[in-house]
Amino acid sequence: MNTPAFRNWQSVQEEVLRRIHAREWKPGDLIPNEADLALEFGCARTTVNRALRALADSGLLDRRRKAGTRVAAQPVAKATLDIAVIRKEVEARGQTYGYRLIARHITLPPVVISAAMRTKPDRELLHICALHLADAAPYALDDRWINTTVVPEALDEAFQTVSANEWLLTHAPYTHGEIAFSAQAASETDAQSLGCAKHSALFAIDRLTWDKGASVTKVRLLFSPGHQLRTVL
Amino acid sequence: MNTPAFRNWQSVQEEVLRRIHAREWKPGDLIPNEADLALEFGCARTTVNRALRALADSGLLDRRRKAGTRVAAQPVAKATLDIAVIRKEVEARGQTYGYRLIARHITLPPVVISAAMRTKPDRELLHICALHLADAAPYALDDRWINTTVVPEALDEAFQTVSANEWLLTHAPYTHGEIAFSAQAASETDAQSLGCAKHSALFAIDRLTWDKGASVTKVRLLFSPGHQLRTVL
Repeated sequence: MNTPAFRNWQSVQEEVLRRIHAREWKPGDLIPNEADLALEFGCARTTVNRALRALADSGLLDRRRKAGTRVAAQPVAKATLDIAVIRKEVEARGQTYGYRLIARHITLPPVVISAAMRTKPDRELLHICALHLADAAPYALDDRWINTTVVPEALDEAFQTVSANEWLLTHAPYTHGEIAFSAQAASETDAQSLGCAKHSALFAIDRLTWDKGASVTKVRLLFSPGHQLRTVL
Repeated sequence: MNTPAFRNWQSVQEEVLRRIHAREWKPGDLIPNEADLALEFGCARTTVNRALRALADSGLLDRRRKAGTRVAAQPVAKATLDIAVIRKEVEARGQTYGYRLIARHITLPPVVISAAMRTKPDRELLHICALHLADAAPYALDDRWINTTVVPEALDEAFQTVSANEWLLTHAPYTHGEIAFSAQAASETDAQSLGCAKHSALFAIDRLTWDKGASVTKVRLLFSPGHQLRTVL
């Protein structure tokens, strides 16, 4: 065995990746077991285990308890998206962030909203509509419903200067959430707020967060035409 | 200390998460150091370290070598998207997958394509246009350029029955890639292929993959109106 000793799981992972990409180990191939790899790499078996587990998590390896580990036949690529506060997102682009409240009401939500948020249909919610700006130009329209049973402090907030997007992150923790990306045609009012043509194709993010069993907030972000959400594979 | 012993890093992570969510540890708070936590939890310091590292990776904790570990003031949520073969994506929806080749040419690409793929402007590439179907209805339009210097075997493929999407995954490994999500208005030909109205808002995925220093393929997927890409937070 001429392979130099691998000291940590990252270097083992790199070598395994190299073999997969160089197709020394081809899609669908059974790879050596952990004990043999540990021997070859001159490292602890737990180090090999950690490296392989990370590669399995990222969809490059298929681990079966009895059948051993194979290179995935059709690897699933994983793209990780950072969902930051919009102010930070704008600032990370080197632009100046701005915020404008459009409307704030306590009102009965449409049934699709109360159904999704699992609130009683006759239960009023806090509805906030606001605009995020980048270098004074519209960046994203923020249409949001807040469950004030779960976040009663929101009733005391005017949201004139701090966006609900930012306020909620520090005041209303959530345990889990659902997120969906889509394209939406700009309505008349969307177009007015964003300063774009009616029916423009807008990138949309819908998000619904939960604190244990109760909904916290449901929001639709509509981004100005041309917006891209980018990441690496 | 009444805390029961925590046997593995996952149970330590769960307890730390519980304290963050219950706001026993509030956003921005400095948390106890690893040695104290190991003592409290009755586990090895390495177990605490692994749990905290995972939470830092997911943006819930801020770890600074000298300043200690704090609960993130503005936690960045991470959404992970699985980028699977489209056939599998359709089948996972319980629908029958279909495929139709629209065009296959070896041709000079527009300059924006050769520039992005870093191929010489006078270098011909393989251009493939195809339609993915779900239950016989248009699902996504696949407009793709393949760098045949890197994947010469693609020249022997007709792509009449197997999509380039699927063929490339098994024949052309890549080391890394870039991916962007956006909304695009349907052009006349997009609309014809997808059977939708011109200017419809279409969800778009642009992907460019690399094998070490050379581009493999650049693809734009345009999904039929109403398509959503969903995941959890």
